Amino acid sequence: MNKTCIIGASGYTGAELIKLINRHPILELRACYVSEHSNFAGKTLAQVHEQLSGDDKLAQLGTMIAFNESMLDNIANEFDHIFLATPHEFSHDYLPSLLNGQANVYDLSGAFRLTNPQIFETYYGFEHKHHNALKQAVYGLAEWHAQLIQNAKFIAVPGCYPTASLLALKPLISANLLANNSLPVINATSGVSGAGRKASVTTSFQEVSLQAYGVLQHRHMPEIEEYANQQVVFTPHLGAFKRGILATLTCFLKPSVSLEDIDNAYNRAYQNQPLIRLLPTMPKLDNVVHTPYCDIAYVYSAEKNCIVVTSAIDNLLKGAASQAIQCCNLKMGDIQGITQETGLI
Amino acid sequence: MNKTCIIGASGYTGAELIKLINRHPILELRACYVSEHSNFAGKTLAQVHEQLSGDDKLAQLGTMIAFNESMLDNIANEFDHIFLATPHEFSHDYLPSLLNGQANVYDLSGAFRLTNPQIFETYYGFEHKHHNALKQAVYGLAEWHAQLIQNAKFIAVPGCYPTASLLALKPLISANLLANNSLPVINATSGVSGAGRKASVTTSFQEVSLQAYGVLQHRHMPEIEEYANQQVVFTPHLGAFKRGILATLTCFLKPSVSLEDIDNAYNRAYQNQPLIRLLPTMPKLDNVVHTPYCDIAYVYSAEKNCIVVTSAIDNLLKGAASQAIQCCNLKMGDIQGITQETGLI
Amino acid sequence: MNKTCIIGASGYTGAELIKLINRHPILELRACYVSEHSNFAGKTLAQVHEQLSGDDKLAQLGTMIAFNESMLDNIANEFDHIFLATPHEFSHDYLPSLLNGQANVYDLSGAFRLTNPQIFETYYGFEHKHHNALKQAVYGLAEWHAQLIQNAKFIAVPGCYPTASLLALKPLISANLLANNSLPVINATSGVSGAGRKASVTTSFQEVSLQAYGVLQHRHMPEIEEYANQQVVFTPHLGAFKRGILATLTCFLKPSVSLEDIDNAYNRAYQNQPLIRLLPTMPKLDNVVHTPYCDIAYVYSAEKNCIVVTSAIDNLLKGAASQAIQCCNLKMGDIQGITQETGLI
Amino acid sequence: MNKTCIIGASGYTGAELIKLINRHPILELRACYVSEHSNFAGKTLAQVHEQLSGDDKLAQLGTMIAFNESMLDNIANEFDHIFLATPHEFSHDYLPSLLNGQANVYDLSGAFRLTNPQIFETYYGFEHKHHNALKQAVYGLAEWHAQLIQNAKFIAVPGCYPTASLLALKPLISANLLANNSLPVINATSGVSGAGRKASVTTSFQEVSLQAYGVLQHRHMPEIEEYANQQVVFTPHLGAFKRGILATLTCFLKPSVSLEDIDNAYNRAYQNQPLIRLLPTMPKLDNVVHTPYCDIAYVYSAEKNCIVVTSAIDNLLKGAASQAIQCCNLKMGDIQGITQETGLI
Repeated sequence: MNKTCIIGASGYTGAELIKLINRHPILELRACYVSEHSNFAGKTLAQVHEQLSGDDKLAQLGTMIAFNESMLDNIANEFDHIFLATPHEFSHDYLPSLLNGQANVYDLSGAFRLTNPQIFETYYGFEHKHHNALKQAVYGLAEWHAQLIQNAKFIAVPGCYPTASLLALKPLISANLLANNSLPVINATSGVSGAGRKASVTTSFQEVSLQAYGVLQHRHMPEIEEYANQQVVFTPHLGAFKRGILATLTCFLKPSVSLEDIDNAYNRAYQNQPLIRLLPTMPKLDNVVHTPYCDIAYVYSAEKNCIVVTSAIDNLLKGAASQAIQCCNLKMGDIQGITQETGLI
Repeated sequence: MNKTCIIGASGYTGAELIKLINRHPILELRACYVSEHSNFAGKTLAQVHEQLSGDDKLAQLGTMIAFNESMLDNIANEFDHIFLATPHEFSHDYLPSLLNGQANVYDLSGAFRLTNPQIFETYYGFEHKHHNALKQAVYGLAEWHAQLIQNAKFIAVPGCYPTASLLALKPLISANLLANNSLPVINATSGVSGAGRKASVTTSFQEVSLQAYGVLQHRHMPEIEEYANQQVVFTPHLGAFKRGILATLTCFLKPSVSLEDIDNAYNRAYQNQPLIRLLPTMPKLDNVVHTPYCDIAYVYSAEKNCIVVTSAIDNLLKGAASQAIQCCNLKMGDIQGITQETGLI
Repeated sequence: MNKTCIIGASGYTGAELIKLINRHPILELRACYVSEHSNFAGKTLAQVHEQLSGDDKLAQLGTMIAFNESMLDNIANEFDHIFLATPHEFSHDYLPSLLNGQANVYDLSGAFRLTNPQIFETYYGFEHKHHNALKQAVYGLAEWHAQLIQNAKFIAVPGCYPTASLLALKPLISANLLANNSLPVINATSGVSGAGRKASVTTSFQEVSLQAYGVLQHRHMPEIEEYANQQVVFTPHLGAFKRGILATLTCFLKPSVSLEDIDNAYNRAYQNQPLIRLLPTMPKLDNVVHTPYCDIAYVYSAEKNCIVVTSAIDNLLKGAASQAIQCCNLKMGDIQGITQETGLI
Repeated sequence: MNKTCIIGASGYTGAELIKLINRHPILELRACYVSEHSNFAGKTLAQVHEQLSGDDKLAQLGTMIAFNESMLDNIANEFDHIFLATPHEFSHDYLPSLLNGQANVYDLSGAFRLTNPQIFETYYGFEHKHHNALKQAVYGLAEWHAQLIQNAKFIAVPGCYPTASLLALKPLISANLLANNSLPVINATSGVSGAGRKASVTTSFQEVSLQAYGVLQHRHMPEIEEYANQQVVFTPHLGAFKRGILATLTCFLKPSVSLEDIDNAYNRAYQNQPLIRLLPTMPKLDNVVHTPYCDIAYVYSAEKNCIVVTSAIDNLLKGAASQAIQCCNLKMGDIQGITQETGLI
């Protein structure tokens, strides 16, 4: 069994990581850390996440441990795998120390996803001080970077919107089908869990209804652009539902592109990828919620020479926790990052 | 025109009061106050409640005024009607001063609803210091206390659960139909707006799902019991919807009671009450949301000698703002508290 | 009082028309017709729409009348205003006869919105046989066609998606700001009421979740294109909510366009339009639901030379019933189609 | 591996059975039957339930088979376990034939739950003709009838409301704590999936909002009463959510009962039952949705000598499919009906 811990185990993504690791055949959850300032420190997992009640294995794990800096060395060496579901600032500050040990590190924050520290500063609002760690990080888009992930010690797990967007967009870019003179337009709607577990009027039940936000300045836009190697117009929306992201992409195509070219591009990319489901009809959000799948479908217009693609994921799973596990599985030799036994499907 | 102000105008009930007063033919909204510590102080009504954008009359009203104690005298004398949509503590502290002027006062908090200060202390957690004001207060259950309301200067507007519960229960009690040896059982489910406009993990979108709370200790239980003159078992629930309360009452009946007795009791109580709709089928919450109505229906079992009654209201309207206006209309001579012209229906 | 009737009064749009006409100071609702095959024929308004219970005026109106062809002449001459909230086929078949009388006719179906019968056939699936009536129809986009509407006898009331889309798009087109070499991309999400009141697995509660549909072949796409005079890529989505449409438009701009040009375009178009609210922040759907407003805001990117505009309406009101009344008001001399007295705001 | 089939595999409960059997270590899904009149006949599992796309094992199973009577003998003998997620009438008509073979039969309909055919007729509206099969049926309330289930060939799997109600109520009855002179009051709210997968205006998205239904005449009331051996007042409600049931029970107690008696009753009943979670706070619906758990908590009032208990289940799992599997596991020797390996937890 691989000794595993989670830092930042009290949030929604933390809860999903706990469940996935708990049923994983090779990973063994040994410790859950939370901020030393958190009210959850010292509480049992079931007290922090009521849905985890009644699980004997988790009950034996004891309580959430209050993290403090002095533990860094131990953590870095005691575990085989460290999953961070922490704020950007926390990951930024402590990642270098965690990389000093033997552990593989999976960071679910945004702190090490953008390779250009300048762009990071613009979109995250603070200076990036760990350029070496930044260079070590491999972007964990599992279906596209499998080789790199397998050889990496440090994975920057992609954001939720970038996962949904890139999985829909990259086959077209990879096959060089996009028109040169226009930008892909990405509209995406996320459930409220994407905003994390904290009190906020913005995400209070009464206030949430469909609305665009962060327009033309959301930090996931440069992340999409970096890994698509392509400028885009990305507009995120908050929707009145708990989980899931639906992304709708409108892309104009090179003059000569045919539907066959498009079909080939998607089939080539995903025919051997069990977690990508190419569907005959447009994806419905509910079909992926609580699953590690990404559902994709598209409609092509010869007349307007464009394609509308939609992709759907669970933002907490394929957009966070299950993709982290998928990366971990890849590192442990499971070529596609899944297999029935890992509990992913 | 009657000069009117709202104290506590930044909450959800405040917004409803603004809209109702704004379209009222006799009331004129002259000022909106908020706590001096509120971020909303100094903001326009449309900035505080975006849904009020584009209304010229409200735009001319200017900004939300930061309330402070030194204004009490002026407020008490400048207005004909003062509506308080404030926290219990605020109402408790300032009501006596506001009663010193010429204004009629409508308090939508719970501070003056229970006549027994002892019970108040138990359920509200602080000592009641204004027993004189308490004696002046008339409980504004409009369909049942019309006469008293018309002659009162100070109305304690009923809580949302008590409104839904009492309107369903009082006809049975009034006609003396309830069995002596059992307590009415009231289950009610409220939308999240009942919790007010504030950041809280409990009412965040992701956390809300159907759940009982405050079981056997909710402060609305003694309020129901006082005005029903009858002990009850009251269990409130939070539901994953924005507005409305559905109350389901199960009552056992005296041995000789017939369906005709029940029909008579409800008809007698409500046949001339335009805001109570006795329906042939069980009320559906959506039919009352955004309206000042209370919908009521019941099913009787001769075999078990019991009745199940359900009542539905909009918690922010009939359970708060529109019932306050109904009381105000009663005071101004409208015998039923409505009329088309007041904008209530 | 203007004698008014509704044909197709049993659907969701019918219910909204009933409420708006019922509180209108000049219109008098005299009759409600439903299909002769409808189960609702012969039922009272409150039986068909439970939310209308308890309204004395509506109760006096009696029951829903089973329409049959033999009534056409009488209807066309008996009323001043006829509102059709009927299926496309019904409107198509009976409109010409209804135009033979004195009444003004407002058709909320899609049967007479597209001027090209060829395109109609492609998107509606049946041949258009009434080219004369088609020529008479004025497209009732109230803020843009006020003059035409005032002089028309027959108004084709716009569809819900086209209303939201065109109100956001037309200022840019009108000011000639759009780039020539790219198409506006319109993503819109509608609540389920847009699908009408009928049993369908697709719109059953359990099945609805966020999903694109009708991609690149929805009948509202040619409607938008005709009245924008511009090709677009339009992708509608079904969302898990009851009412409202949020449209998000991404438009690329001519090289020289500045933010000032954009501001001027929107201000010029809407500064005197009380039902269009230009907001400083992106519209939230809940703020327009149950209102006749269209909320619009936009964000401009100099770097990408594009603009993202979102617009929000209630699909049953500004996207149907209240826009029909707005057209009717225009015809009766109210230059903006509203005024407080008409009950619209 | 135990050869297993599902009859009625196209509904919501059918889909859950497919998923549970598919990941079961001992059961092997060999065939899925649907009505011969169903549009789903001949379609693949992924076409009937899109969420099942991408599963290789299920893809190999082929298509949904159109059931017809001539298959009965073969089915009864070919399989070790037959799960029926069929309408009451279907189960009623075909159960006797299915019992003629070697297979164990689990009927999720209501056709064989009530032992008194008279009561059945009253509540189900048709005559029960198979009294012998009725006598063979064991009521599959897993935590209470484990012994009986293990020895039975034919299990009548409990209804969703009865499961939630009985699990909360039976400890009190079993310990003889209930007052003699009053009836337990059960209010329960179910998600819409309880109504099954069919087109209906009643369950269309736009129409669903919180509402009581079937008051004092719901067929689950006699089912609760039979297995509680106690009359109750049961009021079901439809809620605007997809899955889950929350039941709130109010019970008056014998004079001498203490909180300790109550605690003992619940602990004795459930301390070794891994699928029942006795919680310190009132259950929240979301915590059980998509799980096989029943969460229970209660509050006791010495003053009113009563207890309020709430229980929460997923209506499609513990209220249907996972309880059926739990019964099957019991029969196969798993004493509690679970174990990690069966995929239940």
